[in-house]
Amino acid sequence: MDQVKIIEIKKSVFADNDKDAADLRKELKHKGVYLLNLMSSPGAGKTTTLIRTINLIKDRIRVAVMEADIDSDVDAVKIKEATGIPSIQLHTGGMCHLDAEMTRQGLDNVALEGTDLVILENVGNLVCPAEFDTGAVRNAMILSVPEGHDKPLKYPLMFSVCDLVVINKMDVLPYFDFDLDKCREYIHMRNPKATVIPICAKTGEGVEAFAEWLLAEVEAWKR
Amino acid sequence: MDQVKIIEIKKSVFADNDKDAADLRKELKHKGVYLLNLMSSPGAGKTTTLIRTINLIKDRIRVAVMEADIDSDVDAVKIKEATGIPSIQLHTGGMCHLDAEMTRQGLDNVALEGTDLVILENVGNLVCPAEFDTGAVRNAMILSVPEGHDKPLKYPLMFSVCDLVVINKMDVLPYFDFDLDKCREYIHMRNPKATVIPICAKTGEGVEAFAEWLLAEVEAWKR
Repeated sequence: MDQVKIIEIKKSVFADNDKDAADLRKELKHKGVYLLNLMSSPGAGKTTTLIRTINLIKDRIRVAVMEADIDSDVDAVKIKEATGIPSIQLHTGGMCHLDAEMTRQGLDNVALEGTDLVILENVGNLVCPAEFDTGAVRNAMILSVPEGHDKPLKYPLMFSVCDLVVINKMDVLPYFDFDLDKCREYIHMRNPKATVIPICAKTGEGVEAFAEWLLAEVEAWKR
Repeated sequence: MDQVKIIEIKKSVFADNDKDAADLRKELKHKGVYLLNLMSSPGAGKTTTLIRTINLIKDRIRVAVMEADIDSDVDAVKIKEATGIPSIQLHTGGMCHLDAEMTRQGLDNVALEGTDLVILENVGNLVCPAEFDTGAVRNAMILSVPEGHDKPLKYPLMFSVCDLVVINKMDVLPYFDFDLDKCREYIHMRNPKATVIPICAKTGEGVEAFAEWLLAEVEAWKR
């Protein structure tokens, strides 16, 4: 198994996370690096989606991944093995989210001058990560069909802060009571401008739409 | 639609949650009330499981439910409509977990003298709720098949603190790469004494085992 770098993240001492996040974003803009903050529940399929997507775009832009987790390095190893791109593991030491300073600790271990897109896979959690600006250009989330179409009603902040909602595991739609139209309606109740992309990371169906969204975002950011 | 009582939970001012939780547990023992803290990811099926289970036991013991959620009262209303038992909604105001004092604020709205079992449906989150003793007699969690069998590796604390792991959505096992034996092995790595009960809340299969576990627990607590 490939070895990946594991970074033990320290708790932030900065009081003003919003300012710190804005500073980080400005710095990334200057360096021409796009940072995506990707959130979801545990088991929604973040890692599988990333592997599929990165393999579609890695010949066109230079991608790196930071995998945040309470413990374990299974995700970072999986990404590295399946895509060959630089992948590091951030251990949050029990913390349920990342803020801007913690994200910066991760970015210090990424070769930014040779990177166009850094994807931060946040801790699997629909509550806490929504509360902290990480300094990312955009927030995105993955909601999976088995979780149910009512999630935007129950986790309002998460859906309000996300510019993109990827709906994963569309292949199992026949086995669950999941209403895609209702889900779109609830998502747009929280954020009328959110882009919704249904995919199946397992088969790859729909993933190119997420890849295109990413490529367009990165291009616009670098202009 | 039935109306349910909605309690807006205030942030705790108590510094020593462990002591507060122990005090609450002692008080509940004295009153002969068993409190179960039920946790899971968003969409694992806590509410559907509860409805099935409560309908199996409500003629034998007196049950009440406290549904904790960031927002919305859909779960408490569902429980009340489908089981007829007392059900209240706790709004955490954005907080990602409940501690003992917050649980007590909920219990103040339950008629404890006429109740044998109170089930607290905690906020859907595998990180934060694991960190706080609510004063419950036992912690239980629901892991659903679509989330994957590797979750005990990624959320070690949650699986360490749970005495019971219910594995839900067993009906969709053929459509997911979920290895039940590996899952049991990982759960027991975290807590060798954990009871594991596979169920399908949608069809009711296996739910009677959870019901029997609850009845035996409540009986032992009241002795």
